Amino acid sequence: MTKRWIDLRSDTVTLQPEEMKRAMIEAEIGDDVYEDDPATKALEAYAAELLGKDAALFVPSGTFANQLAIMTHTRRGDEIIIGQDAHIQAHEVGAAAALAGVQLKTVPVHLNQIEVLDVRHAIRDLSDVHYPETSLICVENALGNGCVLTLDNMKEIYRLAYLHSIPVHLDGARLFNAALALGVPAKTIAAQADTVNICLSKGLAAPIGSLLVGEKDFIRRARKNRKRMGGGMRQTGYLAAAGLYALTHMVDRLREDHENATYLASRLTEIPGIELMKHRRDINMVFFKIEEGLIKEATFLQKLLSAGIKSNGMEDGEYRFVTHYGIVREDIDTVVEVMKACLVQ
Amino acid sequence: MTKRWIDLRSDTVTLQPEEMKRAMIEAEIGDDVYEDDPATKALEAYAAELLGKDAALFVPSGTFANQLAIMTHTRRGDEIIIGQDAHIQAHEVGAAAALAGVQLKTVPVHLNQIEVLDVRHAIRDLSDVHYPETSLICVENALGNGCVLTLDNMKEIYRLAYLHSIPVHLDGARLFNAALALGVPAKTIAAQADTVNICLSKGLAAPIGSLLVGEKDFIRRARKNRKRMGGGMRQTGYLAAAGLYALTHMVDRLREDHENATYLASRLTEIPGIELMKHRRDINMVFFKIEEGLIKEATFLQKLLSAGIKSNGMEDGEYRFVTHYGIVREDIDTVVEVMKACLVQ
Amino acid sequence: MTKRWIDLRSDTVTLQPEEMKRAMIEAEIGDDVYEDDPATKALEAYAAELLGKDAALFVPSGTFANQLAIMTHTRRGDEIIIGQDAHIQAHEVGAAAALAGVQLKTVPVHLNQIEVLDVRHAIRDLSDVHYPETSLICVENALGNGCVLTLDNMKEIYRLAYLHSIPVHLDGARLFNAALALGVPAKTIAAQADTVNICLSKGLAAPIGSLLVGEKDFIRRARKNRKRMGGGMRQTGYLAAAGLYALTHMVDRLREDHENATYLASRLTEIPGIELMKHRRDINMVFFKIEEGLIKEATFLQKLLSAGIKSNGMEDGEYRFVTHYGIVREDIDTVVEVMKACLVQ
Amino acid sequence: MTKRWIDLRSDTVTLQPEEMKRAMIEAEIGDDVYEDDPATKALEAYAAELLGKDAALFVPSGTFANQLAIMTHTRRGDEIIIGQDAHIQAHEVGAAAALAGVQLKTVPVHLNQIEVLDVRHAIRDLSDVHYPETSLICVENALGNGCVLTLDNMKEIYRLAYLHSIPVHLDGARLFNAALALGVPAKTIAAQADTVNICLSKGLAAPIGSLLVGEKDFIRRARKNRKRMGGGMRQTGYLAAAGLYALTHMVDRLREDHENATYLASRLTEIPGIELMKHRRDINMVFFKIEEGLIKEATFLQKLLSAGIKSNGMEDGEYRFVTHYGIVREDIDTVVEVMKACLVQ
Repeated sequence: MTKRWIDLRSDTVTLQPEEMKRAMIEAEIGDDVYEDDPATKALEAYAAELLGKDAALFVPSGTFANQLAIMTHTRRGDEIIIGQDAHIQAHEVGAAAALAGVQLKTVPVHLNQIEVLDVRHAIRDLSDVHYPETSLICVENALGNGCVLTLDNMKEIYRLAYLHSIPVHLDGARLFNAALALGVPAKTIAAQADTVNICLSKGLAAPIGSLLVGEKDFIRRARKNRKRMGGGMRQTGYLAAAGLYALTHMVDRLREDHENATYLASRLTEIPGIELMKHRRDINMVFFKIEEGLIKEATFLQKLLSAGIKSNGMEDGEYRFVTHYGIVREDIDTVVEVMKACLVQ
Repeated sequence: MTKRWIDLRSDTVTLQPEEMKRAMIEAEIGDDVYEDDPATKALEAYAAELLGKDAALFVPSGTFANQLAIMTHTRRGDEIIIGQDAHIQAHEVGAAAALAGVQLKTVPVHLNQIEVLDVRHAIRDLSDVHYPETSLICVENALGNGCVLTLDNMKEIYRLAYLHSIPVHLDGARLFNAALALGVPAKTIAAQADTVNICLSKGLAAPIGSLLVGEKDFIRRARKNRKRMGGGMRQTGYLAAAGLYALTHMVDRLREDHENATYLASRLTEIPGIELMKHRRDINMVFFKIEEGLIKEATFLQKLLSAGIKSNGMEDGEYRFVTHYGIVREDIDTVVEVMKACLVQ
Repeated sequence: MTKRWIDLRSDTVTLQPEEMKRAMIEAEIGDDVYEDDPATKALEAYAAELLGKDAALFVPSGTFANQLAIMTHTRRGDEIIIGQDAHIQAHEVGAAAALAGVQLKTVPVHLNQIEVLDVRHAIRDLSDVHYPETSLICVENALGNGCVLTLDNMKEIYRLAYLHSIPVHLDGARLFNAALALGVPAKTIAAQADTVNICLSKGLAAPIGSLLVGEKDFIRRARKNRKRMGGGMRQTGYLAAAGLYALTHMVDRLREDHENATYLASRLTEIPGIELMKHRRDINMVFFKIEEGLIKEATFLQKLLSAGIKSNGMEDGEYRFVTHYGIVREDIDTVVEVMKACLVQ
Repeated sequence: MTKRWIDLRSDTVTLQPEEMKRAMIEAEIGDDVYEDDPATKALEAYAAELLGKDAALFVPSGTFANQLAIMTHTRRGDEIIIGQDAHIQAHEVGAAAALAGVQLKTVPVHLNQIEVLDVRHAIRDLSDVHYPETSLICVENALGNGCVLTLDNMKEIYRLAYLHSIPVHLDGARLFNAALALGVPAKTIAAQADTVNICLSKGLAAPIGSLLVGEKDFIRRARKNRKRMGGGMRQTGYLAAAGLYALTHMVDRLREDHENATYLASRLTEIPGIELMKHRRDINMVFFKIEEGLIKEATFLQKLLSAGIKSNGMEDGEYRFVTHYGIVREDIDTVVEVMKACLVQ
């Protein structure tokens, strides 16, 4: 039997509830490349409805969904405006350039805010022969840094985009976390974008898959691009059934993750030498620094591991702990005790 | 409850045996992007061993596996030599050019044979500034047209490639069908290539997924390219467990599909107006033409459908019926009776 | 002073007449990226008029013109239908895939003919998710093999393309040679295509440059793509003036090259061991084989060189001699004498 | 006869001195695709020597040279570190993504300085599967904003790059202006990079062309990529002779442009409502703002034009006047008088 780890690396590591597994195994199955898989059709219809859009498409991953959106919205040589350090820019292995042949133009993100004037300024003047065409604006909510954009910010960006006839894609890998933090339905956020990526396999605890949601004709064209990118899968119904269970049973549960993160954050303040990034505490992530010289990164990670705790190493000098379906309050107490033992002599 | 169709469109439509579903649900699961999923590790190790290679990588589809191989073997601007009408050329939506930026140079395939001199001739002279670099040769076995390449043919191509230091990729989407037809282990065929794609979701009846198999360092580089192409998935263990079941329990069963195809072919000869493509009867596919003027394509397909039989329309003037795990001998008799009713007044 | 070679490698080696040089030096010059160069404007207007199109764009080379046409006509992932061994497929270093991300679908060329049914067959059915979109048909006239396509052939291809709303690009690098061979104005051939590439630096003896000719809005979009591909040049007027001189003074002169090629061909038949490719004698090229075993390729080329004659090596077992502005009748006699000395003991 | 404009838009508009034209017309010419053009060989050898590198390659434009460097240094999917608003990022129509398929990662440029720690931070950790490989650092000197990077800054970046085995490309479109401003030979700056682009058609007053300079094997590979990108031109000797004249006769003359710019800047301070960007006055460019509300952009440009003065419109709220071979001191006085008349009531 598998050792039970306290795995703080990401909410992607969530295992599946028994009920979800049962849904998988009982799903009505077909060949989705032939558009014959009922469970997938059901998931896509549900997701579209939930986000207030026409249609949805099931894809293998969040990166796939984002890159498929880019591939479908743009022509090679175009430029995309995107918040600095967004997942698409920072964590998708350069795919936008490699696959779609488009350039990213980054605008600053100051915590919860992208200045709409920065976006305005970044839109290229089509009449200048030196400039690529700006054909997409990408927004991310929740952000990877633990914050959410305000709805007002999204609204003003979407309005600007509309005025320039530029579509907006929302990377909503953690859209339901953002909705929870903002206290609005996911649909309200999704309304500020033309297309949306939501991930089923993060806090929602489905094993695999994301959905690209948007207008009917867009999804039709995305279906061909999905095939081109190798994302046409056959009996997707097992995964889709898990995804539908996730959307119907696991969304409200995200509140626990947020509460656990808040609890973890408050307990970390007990430990001398820990500096909490307090202003970035919107969702299920806790960022902190350890006072320099107190402990080596490798030693720290190793001591956690010995105590059954998995953590990523620092990124930009910070550690990130993520709460999720596999983390309960007692785990947090354990983590805090182990960290105290590490850091306090 | 779902209507039971006789689905002759492809072996991709196969549903999963109960035992396979049980294997899925009981799999030991983790996050495969973190390389933490035991069932996926087990599948990859088994597949590598089975094909006599170092390592393997689980990916969403056969198209994905082929394109990942191309992405990892080549640099943009290179040229690939490939048999005419190979899946990569004909059915992957132009992905080799779109994603990897490589040009396909086709060589003729006469039934069971690619002339090695044609391949030799297609290899570009690097010293000429007008020529792209030939950096990959792609071979397909079984072919999409129902034939298999002989082992000797593959050997001479591989030898030639070796002399020119050009790697060979084998699109073995139906490798086990080819092995059965050739009467050799799959490993023997795989030995004539550097990298191999095998599909789990065709005759082997797994729901989703293919494996790219090759040398260790190649697979390491392919792992990053898989992420770039959006194929990094999380709890892949469910699918991997199905895949492992497929490789361990479903390979020998392919014999039934071949026998059923032979039976179907022989029975089709009973029907006047049917011309069988006899020389292309190596695997689980039967190709035939219907005498012109006898029945309209749309009418024929509609009549089959009314009788519970699904078939694709003609491609290049031919129909293709595919036998698989979901087709039993009685189904074939039904098909033949329905066709007689359609075609014979 | 430079040695005078008899250079049979290509008509690209032509040097410039003194009058053309004078035109260069007296050209009215400006910055063409600002669309301020009068000589370039004049050349573009003249070329458009000459070929019966709206507009033209000056570019650095024939490869550039073809690839710019592809970049402007297509979207990444599309497919182009093209005659086998066309320059774009064989001699442009895989650029169509590397730069534009499009796949080439070759159709056979039997001497002077592309079967329109082959083209029809190669057009993809858009409704199939496995197929790329066919977004361009490329035709070449004259062909690189020394032949011309008939006007009827071009007409039926263009009609077919029109019916499928697919544009046709004509690689007319040697369009004026083709026109001469067909006995029609270049405009008549150009009428069978939407866009045309003509080269100024082959038989027309301009130093540098080609023109991409087509409809106004197409050329406007091509201008931005030209910049993207690095082909926006500044004081192009010198080259444009040479080009205008070429179009106004050098077109009729091509007749001499054709006559010289005919003379060369007839004289080559005097030499035992030479097999002339007679059926490919439409323009300024003579293709021939030397009986195997008679002389080694390297020796042959070396002996020619010692006698002041430059030739390329064999391609596909054949030698090609090209007549042009720098080759006069006496040169041909010299060549024949030298070859006799090489080949006859 | 052409009206004589005072053209302040760019130093790209420079016309050619008579001596340079004579050099063009007297050049020894050949076919450069066959590497047979003596004048081009001479230019390439001279440029390589001048910049202390092995070899050089003549190309159609500065954008071409930069994109060719990127194409040759990188693999698709890689990432390039580049100063914010560099020409490659801002003014090359998204080519790095469109052609080479690489992503740009921008680092801030504060006037004369790129923080080496920012560059260090931007280099990706290869072991993380989410990250593209950093395979090139691009530096620009002079910058497009009128400043030069210090040699020390370039040195520390080059040292860092060396430690990470990452090549450095220098976009030296105005390298000789930078050298003048820094008071060092161009070679000294070029020593801080592996490859260098220099433009012949800006202040040096050649009509067309740039040179990509670097190590021998790099240039050999670039030659094939140049062909792939459509930059293989034939009788380049005319342009090369102009370029050689430019490098041998026009480099020292740049001092006049710098002095004229200084003079222009000082005279602009006479005009009320003009705010000069004083800290960005290193080379032949003067940036200034006009007090808001004083005059409309369109009106201002129109009034200049009526007075025979060409200027670009504002970019980011600033006007830019560029001095060059076609601008003499009296022109500046004229410009200042016209501006006074526009702005002072």
